[in-house]
Amino acid sequence: MKELVLATNNQHKVREIIDILGKLPITVKSLADFKKMPEVVEDGETLAQNAVKKASTVAMRLNTWAMADDTGLEVDYLAKAPGVYSARFAGINCTYEDNNKKLLKLLKGVPKKDRTARFRCVIAVAGPEGSIELAQGCIEGVIAQKAAGDKGFGYDPIFVVAKYKKSFAQLDSRIKNVISHRGQAVRNAKKIIERICRSS
Amino acid sequence: MKELVLATNNQHKVREIIDILGKLPITVKSLADFKKMPEVVEDGETLAQNAVKKASTVAMRLNTWAMADDTGLEVDYLAKAPGVYSARFAGINCTYEDNNKKLLKLLKGVPKKDRTARFRCVIAVAGPEGSIELAQGCIEGVIAQKAAGDKGFGYDPIFVVAKYKKSFAQLDSRIKNVISHRGQAVRNAKKIIERICRSS
Repeated sequence: MKELVLATNNQHKVREIIDILGKLPITVKSLADFKKMPEVVEDGETLAQNAVKKASTVAMRLNTWAMADDTGLEVDYLAKAPGVYSARFAGINCTYEDNNKKLLKLLKGVPKKDRTARFRCVIAVAGPEGSIELAQGCIEGVIAQKAAGDKGFGYDPIFVVAKYKKSFAQLDSRIKNVISHRGQAVRNAKKIIERICRSS
Repeated sequence: MKELVLATNNQHKVREIIDILGKLPITVKSLADFKKMPEVVEDGETLAQNAVKKASTVAMRLNTWAMADDTGLEVDYLAKAPGVYSARFAGINCTYEDNNKKLLKLLKGVPKKDRTARFRCVIAVAGPEGSIELAQGCIEGVIAQKAAGDKGFGYDPIFVVAKYKKSFAQLDSRIKNVISHRGQAVRNAKKIIERICRSS
């Protein structure tokens, strides 16, 4: 059976991705199953560049199939920042809460109509022989006035989807995984992986 | 004599670029010399993508050599925003002053050590037969607490270079053109253009 390595050290992401992938005729592993994997520096200018770099590094190093995502929150008032820098918006080694606090402070007094934002997720699936395919997902929302909810991770407590009037951290994970950027991207990636499984 | 069209409608940029280019064995024109040039939508994710799109569109349309720049201000506290969106940071059709005011407001209370920023300029030189070459320039600085100076344009009044302790809008244009992002990029582009002139 072929093997697919999820090229991420973020256990929140691993859990979410495995959940959405569901059953596949391929053995899914995560980086935690491998010792001494060198850290990949995420220095790309775009989400796609980072996803490709992570997936292809792991695919080459382990001589297997690898899948990596890069995800960003684009806030329109901030010229689409933090974008590719979402994870380290409040500094290196900052917490999710630090990031949320910083963002809420920057948007203090900004009216709801100008708080539009979107989560964007790009997934790269890389093969042992150098192939690369991309899958994407995107969801529109607004940045809340304050954090709410304790599910999810990252910017979930301050990202509100209009239809549900709830933050991502207040939504049931089943609903979130259907509508979310990562849910869409993983389902698109699943089609790529199924094609890989069918090919000899 | 060969012809080089500066693919920009910004007359501030045209003047600055012609000033820095100096004498060249090529006829330099600007878009103002041509009627009915369609607007190029700057929808790239990176400065390089926008510069390439502008230069190659004009080169193809006019069957000539064309040069375009895209320039962005990266503010570290804002995860490198406004970057590729620098010109329209405060909204479509906003003024330079609107942009500067918005940036100063976002950085209100942020200490000097966290106000680091850089101007980055990418220039693309495109040929009538589809060739593309890139040149770059970058200068480090900090965002001032308030605007100062009336020279230059764009974010110049609030961008301070440590060595001179003056904003770009307070610096003599001769000094600015030597050290600036656009100065560096144009001089690098000049080498490309001189090579084009030598080739038959």
